[in-house]
Amino acid sequence: MTDISSYIDAHLDEAIGQLGEYVALESVGAQGKAIPETAEFVRSLLEDIGATVEILEKQKPGNPVVVGELPGQSSQTLLLYNHYDVQPAEPFDLWTSPPFELRRDGDVLFGRGISDNKGHLISRLLAIRALQDANGGKLPITIKFLIEGDEELGSPKLEEFIEQHKGRLSSDVSLHEGGGVNPTGRPLVSLGVKGIFAVQMHVRTANRDSHSSIGVTVPNAVWRLVWALASLKDADERIRIAGFYDNVKQPTEQEDTFLRELPSEEETLLERLEVKDFVCGVRGYDYQRRLIFEPTCTINGISGGYEGKGMKTVLPAEASAKLDFRLVPDQDPGDIAEKLRKHLDNEGFEDVEFRTAEGEFPARTDATHPFVEVVRSTAREVYGQEPVTTPNAPSTQPLYPMMKLLGVPMASAGISNPDGRAHAPDENIRIPDFISGTKHVAAIIERLGEM
Amino acid sequence: MTDISSYIDAHLDEAIGQLGEYVALESVGAQGKAIPETAEFVRSLLEDIGATVEILEKQKPGNPVVVGELPGQSSQTLLLYNHYDVQPAEPFDLWTSPPFELRRDGDVLFGRGISDNKGHLISRLLAIRALQDANGGKLPITIKFLIEGDEELGSPKLEEFIEQHKGRLSSDVSLHEGGGVNPTGRPLVSLGVKGIFAVQMHVRTANRDSHSSIGVTVPNAVWRLVWALASLKDADERIRIAGFYDNVKQPTEQEDTFLRELPSEEETLLERLEVKDFVCGVRGYDYQRRLIFEPTCTINGISGGYEGKGMKTVLPAEASAKLDFRLVPDQDPGDIAEKLRKHLDNEGFEDVEFRTAEGEFPARTDATHPFVEVVRSTAREVYGQEPVTTPNAPSTQPLYPMMKLLGVPMASAGISNPDGRAHAPDENIRIPDFISGTKHVAAIIERLGEM
Repeated sequence: MTDISSYIDAHLDEAIGQLGEYVALESVGAQGKAIPETAEFVRSLLEDIGATVEILEKQKPGNPVVVGELPGQSSQTLLLYNHYDVQPAEPFDLWTSPPFELRRDGDVLFGRGISDNKGHLISRLLAIRALQDANGGKLPITIKFLIEGDEELGSPKLEEFIEQHKGRLSSDVSLHEGGGVNPTGRPLVSLGVKGIFAVQMHVRTANRDSHSSIGVTVPNAVWRLVWALASLKDADERIRIAGFYDNVKQPTEQEDTFLRELPSEEETLLERLEVKDFVCGVRGYDYQRRLIFEPTCTINGISGGYEGKGMKTVLPAEASAKLDFRLVPDQDPGDIAEKLRKHLDNEGFEDVEFRTAEGEFPARTDATHPFVEVVRSTAREVYGQEPVTTPNAPSTQPLYPMMKLLGVPMASAGISNPDGRAHAPDENIRIPDFISGTKHVAAIIERLGEM
Repeated sequence: MTDISSYIDAHLDEAIGQLGEYVALESVGAQGKAIPETAEFVRSLLEDIGATVEILEKQKPGNPVVVGELPGQSSQTLLLYNHYDVQPAEPFDLWTSPPFELRRDGDVLFGRGISDNKGHLISRLLAIRALQDANGGKLPITIKFLIEGDEELGSPKLEEFIEQHKGRLSSDVSLHEGGGVNPTGRPLVSLGVKGIFAVQMHVRTANRDSHSSIGVTVPNAVWRLVWALASLKDADERIRIAGFYDNVKQPTEQEDTFLRELPSEEETLLERLEVKDFVCGVRGYDYQRRLIFEPTCTINGISGGYEGKGMKTVLPAEASAKLDFRLVPDQDPGDIAEKLRKHLDNEGFEDVEFRTAEGEFPARTDATHPFVEVVRSTAREVYGQEPVTTPNAPSTQPLYPMMKLLGVPMASAGISNPDGRAHAPDENIRIPDFISGTKHVAAIIERLGEM
């Protein structure tokens, strides 16, 4: 590992140079920008380390996927999942420097996508080159790449793509797109994600707004929506949709141990957001368990009637809301959609319509799988700190298709920092994190080769 | 009455000429336009019929009030309440012709304020001139005028004004600002109004929006608001604020009789608004009773979180709503404000703030007062149709200060038609309604003189 470490340190500037070229490609998926060029650039990056690469089409509206393979000394295979698309950089004026020009300020590198997710790929390639250098050009294990171009758009058709290319992608273990450190510098090991079921809800009670004086007899769309929403979840935060919790898994013994080891973030978060208390007053273990093992029902937005200044005594004819449900294993977004419809009908809200805007399955790696210990023990060695292991993140990424269809356990290892501002202006990574994350990935590959 | 009728018919064009001058004064209260000039114009109109007139200041932010008196042969006194301010004319492009130029098209006259409320004053002055002409310049009873300049702004400080000028304004009976006919041409006699208590509600749970994934632990302002609103009224339309119904008066025998005589409007309204059914499925007597005797709790508008296109998985930190409660006798807006605060606190919604945007008392004339029969019987004679008598309108006007402080019974008599588009583009009155309404007012004055 000494040789590998030295190689990484020595080739840092070269990697930053590559990252600068990669960031300069404005691959904003939402704006359909620079997608083919960026896929080609990624192909050349993979070819540079000796991988066999193909750019494969996803079904529409999916963007092309870069798929690569680099054989190793054993048939043991690690799948690296990344994405080459980035979030829009707007609002530009909130950036300190142009978002598509990598800028270095001391130990910090800025640029759109530098943390999410371009830096991670460059780090992983540097780790592989270090291992090749130390082993006479060979790798201890086989590495496969799956690098998609529309993760920020919700990875459309990824499931279909993986199903279609199952053989080519089959692997033993996998690292998902990123990872990094927590506020006190401890490495984060995340073993899964929540899923999501997002809907747009709409109620229409009449063909036009009326004067509010007839609100005593004519139905009010906002009231209908408010009652329908209130029927979904009580102020005690319990979701009232029949069967909603049926498939929710309780923590296993190992997961419970991980939960209990999680560092407290509650006071910092309450202070930062100026929030009086968490829902249900949870703290400590209850907080962590709620955050990770409980599904959510969140109103993202609501709108209806007169929203301008002052008063308007109007009876609204239309109202709408957006909601997301963060799902936990083994909840199924399709099943939840059916249960939501049944609930609304049973509660007398046949007039409340919704359409599904997004549906992704949750995914959680078996916490007792040996790969988890590989990632954790190497993290401990590289960072010199105990890793923070979460059974799943509270947020959503498209891990389910890989974990389900390829049957791989997945974990995170990467270069991000807690103030990395992914999706926001001045997105950044820090060089010490880049170095540690790269060494961590190299150590994982090396350790897998020893198994 | 024959002379009076002939006079009115003969002097119609003259009255329309006056109305044109009055409409040309752009007395839009909300825009602070032409208020002093219009008050002066009204003064001159009243002086033309021989009244003693003064323009008196209201407390700020009130506009000047034109107060006049025309002594009659008896000390019996009728107070005529009107207002010289109008609603804004915007959007101008929806008007067929310029809103501040009276336009005649066949039997219809168009212009901002022509129905609400300038036409009514001109009609009343024509009725008085007809009576004077028939009586050698004399009037059978004394007439007082109270013509304010900010009714469309909620009549600020009217109560204080009346309190201050109680002696000067004291009267036996009163006609409120207007009246007219229903869709089948039957004269409308309204004996009161609902009050209003309007609030702006606001909830703030954090200093910024968060990512929706932490919606499982961090409070959501929209959820707080939805739950608070749902606690106010159930889907069965019963308002849950403790004591809300305490002071609600049930219909008297006479009011109940009027209710049962009201013509059905339900099917027409359902069809016009394309509404499936009324709340609680009410029809017939239950519909009328609900419309007139039940207070309301109406959400006028709601807003919070992301309301744009597509989805944004955000956890909203702020949310707001506007509500109005239409009150019935003897509910008191101040009392309801206190009860609302208590309710929110008791239900655990101390974080839900509201501020009162408007508060007006309901008012209802005793249906057995002899003045009611004067207005009804003269309507029957003039229109040749049975009047439609409502104990109170479902909407709000500032009648309470007059009824309460002056102790006068009030009723409506006027010139409006059901498609008169008050507050909307192409506001209009119809000449036959102007003539009948004028004759009705003349008949009321004449009858009062006989009592």
